[in-house]
Amino acid sequence: MYVHQVKLRVRYAETDRMGYVYYGNYAEYLEVARVEMLRSLGISYREMEEQGVMLPVRELRITYHKPALYDDEITVRTELRSMPGVRIVFNYALFNTAGVLLSEAETTLVFIDAESGRPRSAPANIIGKLSPYLG
Amino acid sequence: MYVHQVKLRVRYAETDRMGYVYYGNYAEYLEVARVEMLRSLGISYREMEEQGVMLPVRELRITYHKPALYDDEITVRTELRSMPGVRIVFNYALFNTAGVLLSEAETTLVFIDAESGRPRSAPANIIGKLSPYLG
Amino acid sequence: MYVHQVKLRVRYAETDRMGYVYYGNYAEYLEVARVEMLRSLGISYREMEEQGVMLPVRELRITYHKPALYDDEITVRTELRSMPGVRIVFNYALFNTAGVLLSEAETTLVFIDAESGRPRSAPANIIGKLSPYLG
Amino acid sequence: MYVHQVKLRVRYAETDRMGYVYYGNYAEYLEVARVEMLRSLGISYREMEEQGVMLPVRELRITYHKPALYDDEITVRTELRSMPGVRIVFNYALFNTAGVLLSEAETTLVFIDAESGRPRSAPANIIGKLSPYLG
Repeated sequence: MYVHQVKLRVRYAETDRMGYVYYGNYAEYLEVARVEMLRSLGISYREMEEQGVMLPVRELRITYHKPALYDDEITVRTELRSMPGVRIVFNYALFNTAGVLLSEAETTLVFIDAESGRPRSAPANIIGKLSPYLG
Repeated sequence: MYVHQVKLRVRYAETDRMGYVYYGNYAEYLEVARVEMLRSLGISYREMEEQGVMLPVRELRITYHKPALYDDEITVRTELRSMPGVRIVFNYALFNTAGVLLSEAETTLVFIDAESGRPRSAPANIIGKLSPYLG
Repeated sequence: MYVHQVKLRVRYAETDRMGYVYYGNYAEYLEVARVEMLRSLGISYREMEEQGVMLPVRELRITYHKPALYDDEITVRTELRSMPGVRIVFNYALFNTAGVLLSEAETTLVFIDAESGRPRSAPANIIGKLSPYLG
Repeated sequence: MYVHQVKLRVRYAETDRMGYVYYGNYAEYLEVARVEMLRSLGISYREMEEQGVMLPVRELRITYHKPALYDDEITVRTELRSMPGVRIVFNYALFNTAGVLLSEAETTLVFIDAESGRPRSAPANIIGKLSPYLG
């Protein structure tokens, strides 16, 4: 398993009139979490796209336990539990500074060859970087 | 079953550099769809909140089949398949103008008493309006 | 002068914890207003982009008089006061259903040739459609 | 003058199909910049609100020189050039890592007493923290 943590500060823009982070905005937090996880492995999502590999989200699941509030510092713990093939699955748990579990999520993304528009397997450098952890 | 349809035009703001609607922005489309479904029953979500009943999202699931694109007119078909209790479950299917199924989603929301902060059952007027359909 | 009006319903997603529409979200309302104004003239912004003309925003000014609130139906009145050259300037006034002026805005956009990345004058079909009004 | 700098990473969610940061999303960057500037002075915007002082935006002006791109690290330099009264004016300049000036902005915010809904002067602790710089 490969585990990574990132911290995010809740923006005013992200709250709604209940005073909570709007449920759709968590998708951005998950994006930041998985991009930073990849960066921690030496993989740039931006470069991957520029080299012709796209990674759209195929499935999103979130369970909201407690609301995140304005100006809270949120820790997102992201887990990669199995070696990616055509798909890559990230699992997330979000906590506030008191350590309270706010929400849990799972995203499934698919590697797509930008030229053909067809699914393809994970690039070799991603497999290489992950193999010490997910061998 | 109670079924409702609403049309939405994709905004430039909602696209990302892939040229697709960003995966988190579908949450807004689902919000519009369920609020307009309630309005079609004569229920104002805004008034419900003003009367002390909140309805935060507890769970969100989306499967993305095909991307929605800039300026597409999207039809969201929303289904309410069972009478709400403490929870209310909406099922959604999104189509483009060619009738292609773009994505499917499910949201579970919980009725909360604003004063106590505790779950409560669905307001009587919602049950009343839905009973001809979900009796 | 060419004047156009469009109505928009405020989404929950667009509010913040003050209960107001977040100040940055008005940019989306202005986008919808000018795109629908162009559509009313028979001009598709999407097609224009597909034909190699981009129209990024160069300047944005908004004055916020009164807040827009959740579920409000907002009318955006958009004015085109002079014939576009390399630049096109839209002026906006936003009202709620009670006719209260909520905010006023101005955006300046620049026509860009997508291939060269350089500014260019407004496409001939836009000039043609506008000449009866701004001649 | 009081000057503060903050760095932000452009999220995929913030880009549009031109591949640029959507023009409305800069409002969030400006929000982060001024909130972090206040935090650098020992002032919590959240606490101020909890103590009954709101600070809605009254005016926003942005000039977009060059686009910010996905995954760019943006530096926002924020300046407070005069002592706030009922109003507080922030000036911003945004740069990429190559030091290129991307955009310039100005926001005017108004201190509002939450109870009465009326404008009021800046809280004493803000004046106190700023007086060494703006005396």
